[in-house]
Amino acid sequence: MFLLMAIVGSGIAAQRLSPDDVGLQLLENSLVTGAALVALILALQPVSASFNPIVTAIERTLGLLTTREAALSVAAQVLGAVAGCVLANLMFNLDAVSISARHRVDSGALLAEVVATAGLVVVVFGSLRAGRLETIAYAVGAYISAAYWFTSSTSFANPAVSLARTLSDTFAGIAPASAVGFVLMQVIGGLVGFGLVTLLHPARNAAS
Amino acid sequence: MFLLMAIVGSGIAAQRLSPDDVGLQLLENSLVTGAALVALILALQPVSASFNPIVTAIERTLGLLTTREAALSVAAQVLGAVAGCVLANLMFNLDAVSISARHRVDSGALLAEVVATAGLVVVVFGSLRAGRLETIAYAVGAYISAAYWFTSSTSFANPAVSLARTLSDTFAGIAPASAVGFVLMQVIGGLVGFGLVTLLHPARNAAS
Amino acid sequence: MFLLMAIVGSGIAAQRLSPDDVGLQLLENSLVTGAALVALILALQPVSASFNPIVTAIERTLGLLTTREAALSVAAQVLGAVAGCVLANLMFNLDAVSISARHRVDSGALLAEVVATAGLVVVVFGSLRAGRLETIAYAVGAYISAAYWFTSSTSFANPAVSLARTLSDTFAGIAPASAVGFVLMQVIGGLVGFGLVTLLHPARNAAS
Amino acid sequence: MFLLMAIVGSGIAAQRLSPDDVGLQLLENSLVTGAALVALILALQPVSASFNPIVTAIERTLGLLTTREAALSVAAQVLGAVAGCVLANLMFNLDAVSISARHRVDSGALLAEVVATAGLVVVVFGSLRAGRLETIAYAVGAYISAAYWFTSSTSFANPAVSLARTLSDTFAGIAPASAVGFVLMQVIGGLVGFGLVTLLHPARNAAS
Repeated sequence: MFLLMAIVGSGIAAQRLSPDDVGLQLLENSLVTGAALVALILALQPVSASFNPIVTAIERTLGLLTTREAALSVAAQVLGAVAGCVLANLMFNLDAVSISARHRVDSGALLAEVVATAGLVVVVFGSLRAGRLETIAYAVGAYISAAYWFTSSTSFANPAVSLARTLSDTFAGIAPASAVGFVLMQVIGGLVGFGLVTLLHPARNAAS
Repeated sequence: MFLLMAIVGSGIAAQRLSPDDVGLQLLENSLVTGAALVALILALQPVSASFNPIVTAIERTLGLLTTREAALSVAAQVLGAVAGCVLANLMFNLDAVSISARHRVDSGALLAEVVATAGLVVVVFGSLRAGRLETIAYAVGAYISAAYWFTSSTSFANPAVSLARTLSDTFAGIAPASAVGFVLMQVIGGLVGFGLVTLLHPARNAAS
Repeated sequence: MFLLMAIVGSGIAAQRLSPDDVGLQLLENSLVTGAALVALILALQPVSASFNPIVTAIERTLGLLTTREAALSVAAQVLGAVAGCVLANLMFNLDAVSISARHRVDSGALLAEVVATAGLVVVVFGSLRAGRLETIAYAVGAYISAAYWFTSSTSFANPAVSLARTLSDTFAGIAPASAVGFVLMQVIGGLVGFGLVTLLHPARNAAS
Repeated sequence: MFLLMAIVGSGIAAQRLSPDDVGLQLLENSLVTGAALVALILALQPVSASFNPIVTAIERTLGLLTTREAALSVAAQVLGAVAGCVLANLMFNLDAVSISARHRVDSGALLAEVVATAGLVVVVFGSLRAGRLETIAYAVGAYISAAYWFTSSTSFANPAVSLARTLSDTFAGIAPASAVGFVLMQVIGGLVGFGLVTLLHPARNAAS
């Protein structure tokens, strides 16, 4: 919920306050998203620090969660994301919901979502397999702030986030048709990332 | 004291040095506030790292402080905040005190103060209940830097800070009438945040 | 691979989105590179966190790697760098490869590459000799973000990165002729850095 | 040496690349200085992480250093600072030395140097007395980045740095006459800071 507020709210603020330079808007938006991830994961990690259905699906595959836990977690992720987006709209005195008209799909952006999601999976499960639970917050925050910039899609990399961001016709919004394409690419990216982690950490993999 | 100096002083500097883009001013102001929080909490944590009466009130409710300790702490927070604001004014060759004329209240901003304070309480007491004392500095610094952006009120989230910021008619200032509204919303936000933490960390809650 | 994507991709994005201020482009590019380094080293450190042939060569000299391991590592670094550069080009809908025409050599820039590489070696092996394995990610990320700015060459400091960056005629590109000069200076910088570390950590040196 | 390079070099780069906004220049300059401090302290802490004669003088007073060690340390700090400033000038194809004509003294700036230095002493020795040796790098880096902004003097807070910065007539330079005034205020700030630490950590003080 706070994550979506951070993404959508800071996008609105950036667009309003830095009207002359889209790069500056994205810098503001990306730093805020990364900082919010650091704060939220540090504060909520032992309870539930996964805000991403792709990550939850892989945790299920690895047997770290039951199917029931995974389903509840994904439902909470989607509901939280929608609630966060609505709150962000309301705080900035906008309608609670407005469907985004921002089309984001082209071949580069679709490739970018595969790459962005694969990279996120490598960062999360690479850290986990290396036993670096306590630095995941910094790794994920730094990765996402960077990926906003080095991918042409600004790195959604999260199906729950992609769905919720259809509900705000502002800087961070995404048109529903584009969101569908992004989610498909994120699933592929998740598979690619899972393959990369298995490849990079084979010993740990055998052991776990 | 240093916190208020950081907030007010960097606001003055940002306003003077980046006159053309309010977004850039807020970026400068938010990064400085977050960095100052990290430095101060790291250096002062074992003595007194709470600069926020809302946090102190919750610590009192949880029995972590006596009423006397809490009252002294809040008095020190208010005095320190006022002193910091005066010093910032003086360093930038302004009058020691000037009452801010910056009105900040609208319905979005009031909602934002509830959200901002609730989030801060979740970050602080989520970290505490997870036993992550040593990363609170980073969690709070990252949260506040982000919240400057994702809330429409720029996230005061602190009654002592709100009062002191009436004393500088500059970028970070707030008109006294607005400050009263903000403080009321912060109290509500503190209650909401306390409820959320109790909900998210029920096991720990039972144990503590 | 992700490192090169971060450097080249964020350079393209910065150039497109912040067309009016080269400093802002470099700020965006340098923050993204530093953040990507933090995330990648945190996630991959136990497997392979060296992305730099100079660092690998020194590890070989110190007997931390066999010649075979070092050679494989350097080959992977070069291949990964090239792959990352190609992916970045493709994500931004550019040709997979375009040779950079950006000449970067002058006497200041050559001196800068010596200084930048020597500094990186001091940071990496200073941390290692002090037994601070777990903070290398932050030290290297912070160092490189800073060195983009305090050296006039924007601190390539890495032969594999220098070669791959010839393959993108964008913000982060470098003309092949300049890359050759930069790599030579990086080798000299590596030697200087190795000398400095030996000087600064003599006791450890004797012990190791 | 690297610290001064970071301060002076990034000042030159910022001035050249972001000519239209002094605030953006200071943002670039302050982030680079903070990042360089983090990297250098992490890498060099067990050897010598004090780059500041004020800090060294307090360490001497507390009996943490002999007079000889302190004198050698201060000499190295001044020499390193001068060397770093010269290298920065050369990397950017400027004369090795040029005396700065930038006058920085007014009553606000003098007060600011007292405040900045006192704050630095609180951060360093507060961390030390709390036994937080391993987070000093982050505390100092965050503090200095912030202090560039919240003090009107941009927080020199270091006599060796103040002297060396007379040798570059660029963004980060300071006229010799101003440097003398700044150093005097830094000494006063050091005393104030030492008093504050003793006040804030009385128990530890008694114990040590």
